[in-house]
Amino acid sequence: MTYLDHAATTPVLPEVLVAMAEQLGRVGNPSSLHASGRAARRVAEQSRERLAEALGARPSEVLFTGGGTESDNLAVKGMYWARREADSRRRRIVASPAEHHAVLDSVEWLAKHDGADITWLRVEPTGRVTPEAMAEALGDGEDVAVASVMWANNEIGTVSDLAALAEAAHAVGVPLHTDAVQAVGQVPVDFAGSGVDALTMTGHKLGGPMGAGVLLLRRDAACMPLLHGGGQERDVRSGTLDVAAIVGLQVATTSAVGGREERAARLAALRDRLVDGVMDRVPDVQLNGAPLDDVLAGGPGRLPGNAHLSFPGAEGDALLMLLDARGVECSTGSACSAGVARPSHVLLAVGADAATARSSLRFTFGATSTDADVDAVLAVIGPVVERARRAGLGRR
Amino acid sequence: MTYLDHAATTPVLPEVLVAMAEQLGRVGNPSSLHASGRAARRVAEQSRERLAEALGARPSEVLFTGGGTESDNLAVKGMYWARREADSRRRRIVASPAEHHAVLDSVEWLAKHDGADITWLRVEPTGRVTPEAMAEALGDGEDVAVASVMWANNEIGTVSDLAALAEAAHAVGVPLHTDAVQAVGQVPVDFAGSGVDALTMTGHKLGGPMGAGVLLLRRDAACMPLLHGGGQERDVRSGTLDVAAIVGLQVATTSAVGGREERAARLAALRDRLVDGVMDRVPDVQLNGAPLDDVLAGGPGRLPGNAHLSFPGAEGDALLMLLDARGVECSTGSACSAGVARPSHVLLAVGADAATARSSLRFTFGATSTDADVDAVLAVIGPVVERARRAGLGRR
Repeated sequence: MTYLDHAATTPVLPEVLVAMAEQLGRVGNPSSLHASGRAARRVAEQSRERLAEALGARPSEVLFTGGGTESDNLAVKGMYWARREADSRRRRIVASPAEHHAVLDSVEWLAKHDGADITWLRVEPTGRVTPEAMAEALGDGEDVAVASVMWANNEIGTVSDLAALAEAAHAVGVPLHTDAVQAVGQVPVDFAGSGVDALTMTGHKLGGPMGAGVLLLRRDAACMPLLHGGGQERDVRSGTLDVAAIVGLQVATTSAVGGREERAARLAALRDRLVDGVMDRVPDVQLNGAPLDDVLAGGPGRLPGNAHLSFPGAEGDALLMLLDARGVECSTGSACSAGVARPSHVLLAVGADAATARSSLRFTFGATSTDADVDAVLAVIGPVVERARRAGLGRR
Repeated sequence: MTYLDHAATTPVLPEVLVAMAEQLGRVGNPSSLHASGRAARRVAEQSRERLAEALGARPSEVLFTGGGTESDNLAVKGMYWARREADSRRRRIVASPAEHHAVLDSVEWLAKHDGADITWLRVEPTGRVTPEAMAEALGDGEDVAVASVMWANNEIGTVSDLAALAEAAHAVGVPLHTDAVQAVGQVPVDFAGSGVDALTMTGHKLGGPMGAGVLLLRRDAACMPLLHGGGQERDVRSGTLDVAAIVGLQVATTSAVGGREERAARLAALRDRLVDGVMDRVPDVQLNGAPLDDVLAGGPGRLPGNAHLSFPGAEGDALLMLLDARGVECSTGSACSAGVARPSHVLLAVGADAATARSSLRFTFGATSTDADVDAVLAVIGPVVERARRAGLGRR
């Protein structure tokens, strides 16, 4: 089986499994005061310290959550509520239309339910948000509650310069949240260095377990809780700490961040060979997002493990199923609800037409990817695209 | 080590560990369309079916969440928002003052942030909420968004008759949520049979992993999402399904519910021997909550594994630490924040004075409890209470 869908989820690293199994074998709620509780608390706090170190944050800035979606919802809603409560003029949210649905749908819910006004950021054809677009959208910033721009796009892999965006936001006194779910472990991510006020990450995109996420939140960033209760996590996120998952998240993150540079070079080489090989076999294929060798001040301008391609005249879903039948797993990069294929909002945001958006495939590489995975795709992609195009013609 | 704090968390069952390790070894996001994704989806859906069967619900009524706190927040806030949006007069929330903080603090946040009015239910000295108290609080129900009463109290173990409470709520058209975190696996819990509209449960109180919960939600119960995003779980709870934790939750629940009757009898016998033995050694000890042999229409009126005792003249925290130093782990049953002991809101709600509330210990039994655990407590409780009382006198 050729698994090239690491942006959806990744195999759990063996050392993560070992650490989790060990902790699952111990009883203890980290909020309990007895010896078992204190032992669980020590494990959670050690994980917090190591995660903070790997991400350029202070331990007190690490809030454990149930995953990326929860972290995004907490940051966007919590910061909106807190900032609006402090000053009722702050009703505007500035966000990119290429965000993950966890941010997009939170923003739209706040508009519908809670009186927010949305300003959508201009996005470059590559998928990048520029500091100029941010400054333009913010204006004098006085009516803005919060801004949110993802560090790296989950579909087309484009990286934005978060340090520059944070500078633009802070120039007019607006806090910035970033969804860095796809960025951590793939490109350099330094929380303090970037200046952002809140950062979302999750475990299962880098070899850790599902159900474990982090929101890095500066001590001076106001954020109302989304989950109320026992008062865990600085009273911003209540709920019993899932210590085994937290350990797994920490071991995976430490490993992914520690080996990042070497792995990124290896994955970029695999990815480039895949794209070159597909172009040889399907001459009219289009690469979406930033160029493969794109560079920003802080590192690569495109995720090293991301190849996002459009195959004119073929339906992405048909391509996906035909590849799957041949043992190659990838994704269309578009959200599928109830079996209805919708064109990707990300591709529409960067100016693609609906037909191009629907003809796309996302191949994403990860720690376990090898040359054999590239070979497996190249062995079948030509006939698969041909067959999908014939099927498309037949349906018209 | 004598672990008598199963209401805080429980040891993970060996069969749960095996099932989780197996699933953690497989890659696949259940939202992915390829073979690995579909395999993960099958595991999640099979777990959903088995959980539904164990809880008397339909599979489509099972929503997976990140734990009990999230389920409580989702039910209380989501049902309040949805019912108020449908009819703006519905601003009232009816709840018991002995609820878990996940419900209490959600209700209070809605009052502060979202215009809700709270009516606190009258609670019997045992800790029970009666259908009469419910009917009285609801009135004609027209202005009520949602009511919430826990199935069994997490501190003093008192069970309420949820079927009777649901009948009283439905008589005036109000939906009822119940936090059944402590009830499932200890007393009979049948979702359809009870008639409640929403039910919270979690895995780590019955031998499953932390970080995995369920909200049972009737198909006709309106509930706004708390977490927006990919649209998982009937669009009510977005976020990647944590399949390994879901399997663990299911295996634990099936086991706990299946062996409930036999285990309940065994734990009640251990618990009764503990209470009798403590009364012999500390004659002025007080049992809080319902009588040990209390019975309701649907089963026991008190959780079989719960003993909640007050030791006049001794501080609960001192007792806890002295017992801990002797290898006995229990809890005060009161929330401790930042090392400041506050009297339990549950004991205050049932009419205890602050001094009594602060002198309490909660011993909770679970699947791994044995006669040796009771012996260990009885061997030390007399001198421990004496010493705590002397320490208390010394501090005055």
